[in-house]
Amino acid sequence: MRSTASSLMSPLTLSTAFSPRSSQLHPRCLHFLSHSLPIFYKFKSPHSFCPKSQNRPIFLVRNCASITAKPSSQFRKKSADSEQDEKLRSLRELFSKPGIGIDAYIIPSQDAHQSEFIAECYMRRAYISGFTGSAGTAVVTKDKAALWTDGRYFLQAEKQLSSNWILMRAGNYGVPTTSEWLNDVLAPGCRIGIDPFLFSSDAAEELKEAIAKKNHELVYLYDLNLVDEIWKESRPEPPRKPIRVHELTYAGLDVSSKLSSLRSELIDAGCSAIVVSMLDEVSWLLNLRGNDVPNSPVMYAYLIVEIDGAKLFIDDSKVSPEVMDHLKNAGIELRPYESILAEIKNLAAKGAHLWLDTSSVNAAIVNTYEAACDQYSGSLDNKRKNKSEAYGVANGQSGVPTGVYKISPILLAKAVKNQAELEGMRNSHLRDAAALAQFWSWLEEEILKGVLLTEVDVADKLLQFRSMQAGFLDTSFDTISASGANGAIIHYKPNPDSCSIVDVKKMFLLDSGAQYIDGTTDITRTVHFGEPTPRQKECFTRVLQGHIALDQAVFPENTPGFVLDAFARSFLWKIGLDYRHGTGHGVGAALNVHEGPQSISFRFGNMTPLQKGMIVSNEPGYYEDHAFGIRIENLLCVKEMDTPNRFGGIGYLGFEKLTFVPIQNELVELSLLSTAEIDWLNDYHSEVWEKVSPLLDGSARQWLWDNTRPLAKQ
Amino acid sequence: MRSTASSLMSPLTLSTAFSPRSSQLHPRCLHFLSHSLPIFYKFKSPHSFCPKSQNRPIFLVRNCASITAKPSSQFRKKSADSEQDEKLRSLRELFSKPGIGIDAYIIPSQDAHQSEFIAECYMRRAYISGFTGSAGTAVVTKDKAALWTDGRYFLQAEKQLSSNWILMRAGNYGVPTTSEWLNDVLAPGCRIGIDPFLFSSDAAEELKEAIAKKNHELVYLYDLNLVDEIWKESRPEPPRKPIRVHELTYAGLDVSSKLSSLRSELIDAGCSAIVVSMLDEVSWLLNLRGNDVPNSPVMYAYLIVEIDGAKLFIDDSKVSPEVMDHLKNAGIELRPYESILAEIKNLAAKGAHLWLDTSSVNAAIVNTYEAACDQYSGSLDNKRKNKSEAYGVANGQSGVPTGVYKISPILLAKAVKNQAELEGMRNSHLRDAAALAQFWSWLEEEILKGVLLTEVDVADKLLQFRSMQAGFLDTSFDTISASGANGAIIHYKPNPDSCSIVDVKKMFLLDSGAQYIDGTTDITRTVHFGEPTPRQKECFTRVLQGHIALDQAVFPENTPGFVLDAFARSFLWKIGLDYRHGTGHGVGAALNVHEGPQSISFRFGNMTPLQKGMIVSNEPGYYEDHAFGIRIENLLCVKEMDTPNRFGGIGYLGFEKLTFVPIQNELVELSLLSTAEIDWLNDYHSEVWEKVSPLLDGSARQWLWDNTRPLAKQ
Repeated sequence: MRSTASSLMSPLTLSTAFSPRSSQLHPRCLHFLSHSLPIFYKFKSPHSFCPKSQNRPIFLVRNCASITAKPSSQFRKKSADSEQDEKLRSLRELFSKPGIGIDAYIIPSQDAHQSEFIAECYMRRAYISGFTGSAGTAVVTKDKAALWTDGRYFLQAEKQLSSNWILMRAGNYGVPTTSEWLNDVLAPGCRIGIDPFLFSSDAAEELKEAIAKKNHELVYLYDLNLVDEIWKESRPEPPRKPIRVHELTYAGLDVSSKLSSLRSELIDAGCSAIVVSMLDEVSWLLNLRGNDVPNSPVMYAYLIVEIDGAKLFIDDSKVSPEVMDHLKNAGIELRPYESILAEIKNLAAKGAHLWLDTSSVNAAIVNTYEAACDQYSGSLDNKRKNKSEAYGVANGQSGVPTGVYKISPILLAKAVKNQAELEGMRNSHLRDAAALAQFWSWLEEEILKGVLLTEVDVADKLLQFRSMQAGFLDTSFDTISASGANGAIIHYKPNPDSCSIVDVKKMFLLDSGAQYIDGTTDITRTVHFGEPTPRQKECFTRVLQGHIALDQAVFPENTPGFVLDAFARSFLWKIGLDYRHGTGHGVGAALNVHEGPQSISFRFGNMTPLQKGMIVSNEPGYYEDHAFGIRIENLLCVKEMDTPNRFGGIGYLGFEKLTFVPIQNELVELSLLSTAEIDWLNDYHSEVWEKVSPLLDGSARQWLWDNTRPLAKQ
Repeated sequence: MRSTASSLMSPLTLSTAFSPRSSQLHPRCLHFLSHSLPIFYKFKSPHSFCPKSQNRPIFLVRNCASITAKPSSQFRKKSADSEQDEKLRSLRELFSKPGIGIDAYIIPSQDAHQSEFIAECYMRRAYISGFTGSAGTAVVTKDKAALWTDGRYFLQAEKQLSSNWILMRAGNYGVPTTSEWLNDVLAPGCRIGIDPFLFSSDAAEELKEAIAKKNHELVYLYDLNLVDEIWKESRPEPPRKPIRVHELTYAGLDVSSKLSSLRSELIDAGCSAIVVSMLDEVSWLLNLRGNDVPNSPVMYAYLIVEIDGAKLFIDDSKVSPEVMDHLKNAGIELRPYESILAEIKNLAAKGAHLWLDTSSVNAAIVNTYEAACDQYSGSLDNKRKNKSEAYGVANGQSGVPTGVYKISPILLAKAVKNQAELEGMRNSHLRDAAALAQFWSWLEEEILKGVLLTEVDVADKLLQFRSMQAGFLDTSFDTISASGANGAIIHYKPNPDSCSIVDVKKMFLLDSGAQYIDGTTDITRTVHFGEPTPRQKECFTRVLQGHIALDQAVFPENTPGFVLDAFARSFLWKIGLDYRHGTGHGVGAALNVHEGPQSISFRFGNMTPLQKGMIVSNEPGYYEDHAFGIRIENLLCVKEMDTPNRFGGIGYLGFEKLTFVPIQNELVELSLLSTAEIDWLNDYHSEVWEKVSPLLDGSARQWLWDNTRPLAKQ
């Protein structure tokens, strides 16, 4: 599917981070760079974007995509202006209520866990503004309302926003950031409210700093979300889908072992507990899977792991007796989801040294902990006055509670897959390939018959084929089914009412993926059912050459992914072409389709080395505006290579392919390929046939045969 | 010649920078990384290595090599232990003199300008220790003396140091850094003396911080260098070679234009003056060339450029009437070299805002300025008490003097060559190629005749051929003439007494360069006069493939050099091989053979984009310990490519070759090369013949013909 770089983060983070007065660059902003800046944006001094965390790598990739969701029909119909008026009026009424007293309120797209896909009840920005695009930030003052979104959504936002809203076209010249705008429209010294659960601690700190320039105060409203207050009964219920145990066959490592490794890391770091807030980290660590959001098999929960225990904060109606047993066996107690802050206060009172990843843990948790620590250490300080060793003690295992601000250790542990996880990925990819062969065989036949199929029809049919495969659960992201010029819109999502027809005259780009019980897939193929132009063939072939070069790369251990990025671009560069997104993102094993910390990108800040067992996508592309789009994507697993030498006494790494679906030979301009590249393509197709044909029969099997025939060398 | 990465900086900077307690990384240390650390060393948070300069890029390349020199015979003979004893005794006696009062003294290898090649009178570390290697730091306490050097020099240092000295094998496990050692052997609260002219301001600050851990004080002895005090009459005179005007034909831009651009930059930065201390920057800016040090056509001088004037601090005996006129025309006054600090004080008193590049300007200058500023602003503060605008004024054009700490703007201006400079580089490279053809023709004949030639004989003969070329001035660095296993020693320098024979049984690596009136060259070729082994051919061919891949690279504007580095390694990586140095360094035009700020290296910190007009070396290699070494080096000039597309509305860049000397076909394993690679080699050789044959006759011309014949494709 769309790659790391093609993803957007919330305009809010973006807006605060790119304030021209600030030399700071927030890690999450990276997702936007490719669309708004020259490709080789020079990073400015990065040392202050993450004030709490000195031990953190310069740039941090958490999940690699925007916040997206499938809003129900209530979101889709445009509200009347009067209805929008009424919402804004109600919201503003709350501003002056006792205990609130604010001059402006910011409504971001996030949930409390920085999730890529969120539940409908948390789509507050969509509710208040009427704009349903995946990325956006709403800001409401006493007399103005503004919504920031990016280029993908300008048209949609124009249609959906009522006249009460100002549309802020983020990235356009002269458009202020949210904090710049607030600093501009508010008189100095105002109070700007946020729901602190909806901002990572880092993002809130940045915002605070930015608005402090005009002496505005950032007010954390812990007890109520103002949008929820006006949403009332019509607000959807929080999801309560049952969770399930992710079988050990697929997980490969039991919960006790995972907790035990985590606890070793806590002890090494001088911590007594960690707050895990990313939903995929909770799922991975506990070998659980949920169904609370689309595309990601996760459930809403926080987890606190202490040295001698662990507590899962979750709505217990989701917990079956079987799951309950599973948790008990690992020594995990249940607590209500809402009691997280109370527990944070308890931990501070106990003198716990909490490991907090401030790039993901929300400001409500971090600030509650810090306030409790201050309170506790304040009273302790009085007793200890003049004892110079007090600080020393504070950094040890007991005494005054202090936070340790570092990336979550689970991020890397989760990214490096074990044998069982890899086996699940391999198996699910073969079933996925079978579904795709059935699909392509069907599509080719329909199109050649002259049946009129829209992009949405095609995506729906693909889902149908996939859902017949064993262990199928869900799509892993919204299918990008893009015909002709739509292929050049990197984030294209076809609209059932207005989408294009897939036909023999245009190229067709299909980026899709699925969640299976044992693995997660993500694949893009670009095809032409008629006669491609020489230009299309040249571009396709150069994208393919980049894909092959990355696939075949061998590199020393400790190489960060960005070192390999140029391999995928060099053939396009030769003729002055390029693409504005990264080349590869991490993928979870039966988990989120986008995960960090590794990436293969021109964003040089991500120094995470590629490691054996990591999964990355290989998805170079080329996009010709208003004409066509090309992307060729396989998933790869990093493996150790058996090189005849091991210079430097270290291992050399390479890739194992996970994806086995034909690449359309008709789009290849053979004269551009070297013998080795032709061999690669022929070998790949022969492997596709060998691995996938046993899962097929009938016309799909014939299609696979036809589409895996070797190209003749010239 | 040897690349950026194969160069060493002074172990002192290294030692302070790699202190395990420090997360700082000094930019100059980068030169050492490749030898002491895994290739993909993860840079730690870089934000405090350069405390004064917030606006500086993360890593800064100034010159790209170690300090080297050709010590005269007085240095070469080993002093008797008693003589060494005497020197140490005299030095220690000075420790307790009035106005000194120190407990230890540090003697680095540097001159006052951070030069790569230094004059003999500044080789104080060699004089005091007896160790004549190019890199080393001596530290003398009241009862101990220690010398730090790196792996290249362990054997030499063992031989040359008397028993009074402890040899510190820098980079070996457990060997302390200089500051760690001082913190260990001295009682807390000692005074450690340095000559502040011999440390960049950044290096001195780091040292100060490191020794402060044991409450030691860093004492700047401005008025005398203690080694010079005991060296006395036997100390060589400072060089007084006449300087000359670098003709406009070669410089391309007159001094007034260069000064005018510089002054615009000063004004933009809110500065009223700049101190230029790098010798090549002074030479480039003033279109002057000198002869004070080997290999680099520079002269010892400081330059201060103000908005309305400029002063050159130089021994005026070097200044001919012609040069005097040239300077006068550009409005430049002369001052004695020794009066630099007095002028710095004057400038501070005048309220000048000085632009200081603290990575190159020495601690004597920076500290003198800061002390004078403090003095001046202190007295001013009293008058201005409670005036809150005081600081605002201080950052403007007048009022309290404050420094602006940024990279010298001359660094980049010098790196981007104009047409005249490029023309000079092209022309000098053709004459250099003619000399090399004569040389290789001669060498091949001698060896096949069975004449016994040592590595030094060969280097001497090469110099002889070069010196017959028009405009020849000097070598541009010490020739690396390395037969067989010596080729695997990246910094090899043959010793006349003990060097190897060049013969038909071994590979021979020759890395050399010259200074001409119009340009600077740097070329490496590796040959075998007999029958290379299959292993040697495979390694040579993979190095060649990397060389070709970099040579042929096309890349978008704003691409930092490190993005291209992997192109040069990928063919070696495929079989688990690599090389422990960067792939390319900048080269001056009729100036230093190593210059920044650009580089092509696996050190990802150098974000300087390659720009049209920059010159870089392309020198991948492979080194098999105790067996052979391979390096293939051409110089390249960055040029704009006429690509059929310009995606992103930006230019695409590539390289123009400057070096035209045959690459030995006999070492090529044809079966490894693609058709395109064979074409590259044949095209290159055809171009070599076309460009260089007109400059040759007789056997050299025949040799060139024989060695530029196309390889048949298989």
